[in-house]
Amino acid sequence: MVKTTNTLYQYGTLALLVPGLFDGTLQLSDLLKHGDTGIGTGDGLDGELIVKDGVAYKVDGNGDIKKLDGDFTVPFADVHFANYQPLVSVKETITPDNLESTILSRKNWSNVFFSIRAHGTFNQVTTRSINKQDKPYPPLVDCARNQHEFHADKVTGTILGYYSPQLFNGAAVGGLHLHFIADDLSIGGHLLNFAMHDGEIDVQKFDQLEQKFPTQSDEFMQHDFSKDDIAGAIGEAE
Amino acid sequence: MVKTTNTLYQYGTLALLVPGLFDGTLQLSDLLKHGDTGIGTGDGLDGELIVKDGVAYKVDGNGDIKKLDGDFTVPFADVHFANYQPLVSVKETITPDNLESTILSRKNWSNVFFSIRAHGTFNQVTTRSINKQDKPYPPLVDCARNQHEFHADKVTGTILGYYSPQLFNGAAVGGLHLHFIADDLSIGGHLLNFAMHDGEIDVQKFDQLEQKFPTQSDEFMQHDFSKDDIAGAIGEAE
Repeated sequence: MVKTTNTLYQYGTLALLVPGLFDGTLQLSDLLKHGDTGIGTGDGLDGELIVKDGVAYKVDGNGDIKKLDGDFTVPFADVHFANYQPLVSVKETITPDNLESTILSRKNWSNVFFSIRAHGTFNQVTTRSINKQDKPYPPLVDCARNQHEFHADKVTGTILGYYSPQLFNGAAVGGLHLHFIADDLSIGGHLLNFAMHDGEIDVQKFDQLEQKFPTQSDEFMQHDFSKDDIAGAIGEAE
Repeated sequence: MVKTTNTLYQYGTLALLVPGLFDGTLQLSDLLKHGDTGIGTGDGLDGELIVKDGVAYKVDGNGDIKKLDGDFTVPFADVHFANYQPLVSVKETITPDNLESTILSRKNWSNVFFSIRAHGTFNQVTTRSINKQDKPYPPLVDCARNQHEFHADKVTGTILGYYSPQLFNGAAVGGLHLHFIADDLSIGGHLLNFAMHDGEIDVQKFDQLEQKFPTQSDEFMQHDFSKDDIAGAIGEAE
């Protein structure tokens, strides 16, 4: 397989998580054929995933971080083969309020997908993760209301995630969707808040999106998405 | 290159046509590396394209149909490698009102992309095409208001097009987007109305969408799509 670095591979859609279609339908070993870097979630919304240098980690509902085996399954994930370019060395504090503008003021990438990798020292980081859910699965917003939050001050780690054009909000998360993992694995998860005061921000632009659907899942194929408030749920849960 | 038949390749987005980004940014010879079947439009919104059995035809603003050379360029197109399966032999009249339900009552494909190819005899067909536009390009809806319509009774030909999940309305045309070409090239274009009373409807499901962006186009990269009423324009023009 050719390892193209200009393609973002998305398995499933953010939309399918909204009504609770959380079944893991792709093995991690197959997902990693499409990238060595990325984010996602596990079967039953089992934790927050982060893939870095070809190694997949899960931050579970208790905040514990462990490496994942190839037979772990995912309902939704984004991966790509890393080929980042340096964007900026952090001089003033970077927060959720200025990360996107820091990038888009330097790169005219608002209409395409790109990845962000930011490694450095953080004055503070707040993440969340979600316990693995039991069937029948509740909607995504109910799970997010019961999420567990974690906080650390003075931590070194990596923000990893993606920017998606607003045109694709629903299929993906329009704007930034970021996960975090500390170098010492002490904290990680879906990133809620942060203040980065030192380090490097790298970016990687994609020319194309490879959007794979779980067509082997009867539940996905038969679901009526017309009744789901997908944009509303993404705004609340992501 | 492997000719996968489970992938729809989309070059550009429907959204980029809405504000008038009509520059042809991909050569047909490159487009056809990704499929032998499809639809699209030309540089400057130059006609309605239909690709059948590896041959690309253009229906121009006068309704004339001609084969295209490899150096013809497109701002937007969908192609795939044909591997259709028979869906149904037409017994009762098929019209725009019942085509989608005819398919979706037999296949639970509403959440994925698929292609339709319907060849047979039509009691009537109404198509449209648009003259090549001059710069500065007007918005898509203005072009559609000046479209030329063509009509034929008792014609044999092919409907070719795609179904896109509503989740992707904007990037593509949510629901059906169909073009037509008569066997004798007497009429063709974007399909506005039809009554098919004899023939075969074939379908081909895709597991994945390969969405390519014209990242080499400064105009595309710099455009602010937030001010465009993309869904409204698609509803009116497509």
